[in-house]
Amino acid sequence: MTELNKTDLSGIKYDADGLVPVIAQDHKDGTILMMAYMNAESLGLTLESGKAVYWSRSRKKLWRKGEESGNVQTVKALYKDCDGDTLVIKVDQIGGAACHTGHRSCFFSERDGNAWKVISTPVFNPAEVYKK
Amino acid sequence: MTELNKTDLSGIKYDADGLVPVIAQDHKDGTILMMAYMNAESLGLTLESGKAVYWSRSRKKLWRKGEESGNVQTVKALYKDCDGDTLVIKVDQIGGAACHTGHRSCFFSERDGNAWKVISTPVFNPAEVYKK
Repeated sequence: MTELNKTDLSGIKYDADGLVPVIAQDHKDGTILMMAYMNAESLGLTLESGKAVYWSRSRKKLWRKGEESGNVQTVKALYKDCDGDTLVIKVDQIGGAACHTGHRSCFFSERDGNAWKVISTPVFNPAEVYKK
Repeated sequence: MTELNKTDLSGIKYDADGLVPVIAQDHKDGTILMMAYMNAESLGLTLESGKAVYWSRSRKKLWRKGEESGNVQTVKALYKDCDGDTLVIKVDQIGGAACHTGHRSCFFSERDGNAWKVISTPVFNPAEVYKK
C-alpha cells in the first residue's frame, strides 16, 4: 500500500450523507465479497492503514472491518468510477470470509426460478467468531 | 433467463427512495463493469426481458441500458447480499463496453500514489455512439 496515499482525494462524490458506496472485490479471482460505505474519514484511514475501514450506517460509527472477527481486508488497489460516486477496492480477505454470516461473500443468495437459493457454505461459525 | 422470474421478489430491501444498488459484473471474467440503481419496477422489467433496466437517479426515469448505444446487458444471474440491500447481476455486455465514456468498465480510474490514473482505453467513441 505504499503506492496509495490520501493526498488530493478529489474526484470522489459523496452523497447527501457524506458517504460513498465501496465494492470489495477479491484481488485474486475477482469475486465480489461485499458492498459497504465509506465517508472521507474512513477512506483516509483505509489508505493510511492499508486495511478497509468503512462507515457503519446502522451503528453510525467507523467500522474497522475485521476488528472483532479478525477477518480484516488488506487493500491492494482502489478505483473510482466515471462519475466518482462509487469506489471499488481489491482486497486480500484475511480469514477467507467477508460476510458476518460466515460466508465468503455476502452475495451467497442466487435467484433460482421464483426463489433465492443459498449457493455457498459458511467458512466459519458466526456464533464462535462473534461470541464476545 | 427462463430460470429467473419476478414471482416473490421478497427479501430485497429498497432504500427510502425505493431504490437498491446493483453491481453489474462480467459473467465471464468477473470484471466489475458498473454500479447503478433499480427500483421494483425496473427489477421486474429486467427479469421479464432478460436485459438490465435501471432507474436513472439523474433523469428520474427508467433507463433501459443500451437503448441508445446498443450496448445492452444480457442478464445471466442475479444475487442479493446477506441483508438484501444490494444486488449483483452477472451480465453479458453487448458491444464490450458498459461505460458511457466508451471504457469497458466505469472503474477505469485507479489510485496511483496521490492521483488517479486511467487504466484502460475506450472501446468506442462516445461522440459517435451518442450523436443523436
